[in-house]
This record gives sequence, C-alpha cells and structure tokens, in this order.
Amino acid sequence: MSAVPKALAELIEALGQLPGVGPRSAERYAYFLLKTSSFKSEKLAKSLNNLHGGVKQCPATFALINADQDESPLYSNPDRDKTTIALVAEPFDIIALEKTNSFKGTYHVLGGLISPIDGIEPEQLHIPELKKRIQDDKVKEIILATNASVEGETTALYIQQELLPLDIKLTRIAQGLPMGVDLEYADQITLGRALERRQNI
Amino acid sequence: MSAVPKALAELIEALGQLPGVGPRSAERYAYFLLKTSSFKSEKLAKSLNNLHGGVKQCPATFALINADQDESPLYSNPDRDKTTIALVAEPFDIIALEKTNSFKGTYHVLGGLISPIDGIEPEQLHIPELKKRIQDDKVKEIILATNASVEGETTALYIQQELLPLDIKLTRIAQGLPMGVDLEYADQITLGRALERRQNI
Repeated sequence: MSAVPKALAELIEALGQLPGVGPRSAERYAYFLLKTSSFKSEKLAKSLNNLHGGVKQCPATFALINADQDESPLYSNPDRDKTTIALVAEPFDIIALEKTNSFKGTYHVLGGLISPIDGIEPEQLHIPELKKRIQDDKVKEIILATNASVEGETTALYIQQELLPLDIKLTRIAQGLPMGVDLEYADQITLGRALERRQNI
Repeated sequence: MSAVPKALAELIEALGQLPGVGPRSAERYAYFLLKTSSFKSEKLAKSLNNLHGGVKQCPATFALINADQDESPLYSNPDRDKTTIALVAEPFDIIALEKTNSFKGTYHVLGGLISPIDGIEPEQLHIPELKKRIQDDKVKEIILATNASVEGETTALYIQQELLPLDIKLTRIAQGLPMGVDLEYADQITLGRALERRQNI
C-alpha cells in the first residue's frame, strides 16, 4: 500500500539508474513528465529505443557515427588532414575538441584510459588500430589529447613508449592555467605545471 | 556533418527537457545509456510509455493512484482517520508526509499553490472538492501542510478564510529550526519564526 503508483515508481527507479541521479531528482523528473503532455515521455521513450540501433562506432577512428554511415565524416572528409591524429579517450572528447573549431586533423578514440584500479589494461585500448592507421595514412603527428589526470598522464606515457620506435612527431595538449581562472584560486598542481611549462614571449 | 550521431543527438535533446538537466548532464546520461546494455534504455523507454496510462488521480483526494484503483488506499483504508485531512499542494508532498510514519489521517491535494505571478488562481485549486469532503466525511480538523513559502502562506491564509464559516479545527504545520541545522547557519526568516513561535517547555 505504497503512496506511489506502480507506473510512477518504476519510472523513478529507471531514472535513478542514470549516473549522478539520486532518488529525489528521479522523483522530480518523473513527476515533471507526468504533469506535462504524454507526448514528451513518448518522444523520450522513442529516442531511447532508437539509441542502440541508430549509433555505431566508426571502424577506423572509433568515433560514434550514425548506423547508416560507413566511416566518421570527420575522417572521410577530404578537408581533414589524415596525417595528424588527435588521440582521445572517449567519443565525447571529440565533440569538445570540435567545438574549438581549431583542429583540422582527424581523431582516434582509445576507448578508455589505462587504470589498473578500474581494471582497464592497455590491451583493451584501440592501440593496434592506431598503429595500423599510422602506417596506412602515413601519419606525421599524434596529439596526445587525454585528460590532465593520473590516468590520462599514464596513458599518454604508455602511448609515447609504444610509438617511440616509429618516426613520428608526438605532442601533448598544453597544461596550465585555464581561461578566466584567477591565479590565487588555481590548484597547486595546475599552477605548478603552468610554472614548469612556462613559455618564452 | 555534426560530430554527434543523430540518434544520440535526439536522445540528448529529449533528456535536456527534464527540469534542471543541462546539455552536459544530458550528454552524460545519453553516453552512459549508450555504453551500457540496451536493456537499460529499453526498460526506461517502457516505463516512460507506461507512465501516463498507468497513473491517474484519486477522485476524492487527488492523490496519484494506479489506473486500476478506484480510490487512494490512503483514503479507502479503514485504518485512516477520514475526519482529519492534511491539505497539501502536490501529490509528492503526500510521500514526504507518509515517510514520517506519524500521520494516520487522510490527504487532500490542492493541485498547486496560489501564485498570481505563475497565473495560479484559487479557482484552479481543488477547494470545492475539499468542502464536499468536509461535509461528507464529517471532518473535524484540517492541517494546512503547504510549504513555508510566500505561495504556501498565501494559500494557507486563503483556505483559512474560506473555511472560517465552518465549525472545524484548522491547524498549520509548525515552522522553526530544522533538525541538524546550527542556529548560526539558519536563515533570518526561519530563525525569526522559530523565535516568534517559541513554545513553553
């Protein structure tokens, strides 16, 4: 004899499975959907049902693409420079880099970052496919665009060692003070790196 | 030639319609659903499709009930005292009060709070139905359990005036310092009320 109707309780439980959504937020979302037209919940349901069937991985870059596409347009487009690859951990990192509008190379998704604690070993990352692309596309530069975290640094270092035998330019995205952040509020590690990697002006 | 596959972009947009969910959170939820088994998204889709058909309002109390129920079990249950009504703004307020396990009366949902700014007038609230219940169930006490906000107070005052001609006990849930909050961190209005409504010990 719960105070919550079954259909509502089930939706609250399903919404509560989303990352970072607690019971209170799930309740709020469910009640919002109940109060608004059923059209909104049906539209959301439809896009959920279309998700897995509508998205696949690009076989070359492991970026996410439409199920009816052969390759990522960010790879197949002749305007993109195939000899420069930005190496990222996850597909969404591509979106973040694309938003800068300042990169005209191509991407390669590793599919994670090395993390012994989470059980992610180098063997699980798309490194063999990267090596194949380096050969096939005569790649000149790999930009290691992984997070400025322990896992991101570990992975960058591992890739660096793996690609050392190849005659290829390896770069790492810059680390330092982010825009709009006051020096006094920056954390120690960021500030330390900003000092250490200071540049001539 | 967007970097986001269509099916994913549509899900992100639909999730972004939920209250308080920004584009970044919507991306995070969508990517989580894409990475986990399609079973999770399908289950969420199913509960969304079942929502509006599975939930209706109790005709007596306006609480939310299963579509196959006639009345709220919190009303029809003979153990609940029909002569005491806790008057709440929204159905979810009932859940919050039920969790206290300290109320054995029944509920009545107003369906909102008077708010001229949001265009909510007293005529839109379930006040006539409340008056009918007061007669039919020989109600002795109405507990005004609306929020301690301007709208909650306005609505409580309005109901008080509406019910004044009836020979009925009207009470308001207590306002004061919440449990676990240090006096020095309480806001001025809360502390002001806690002082004003101080009780003999």
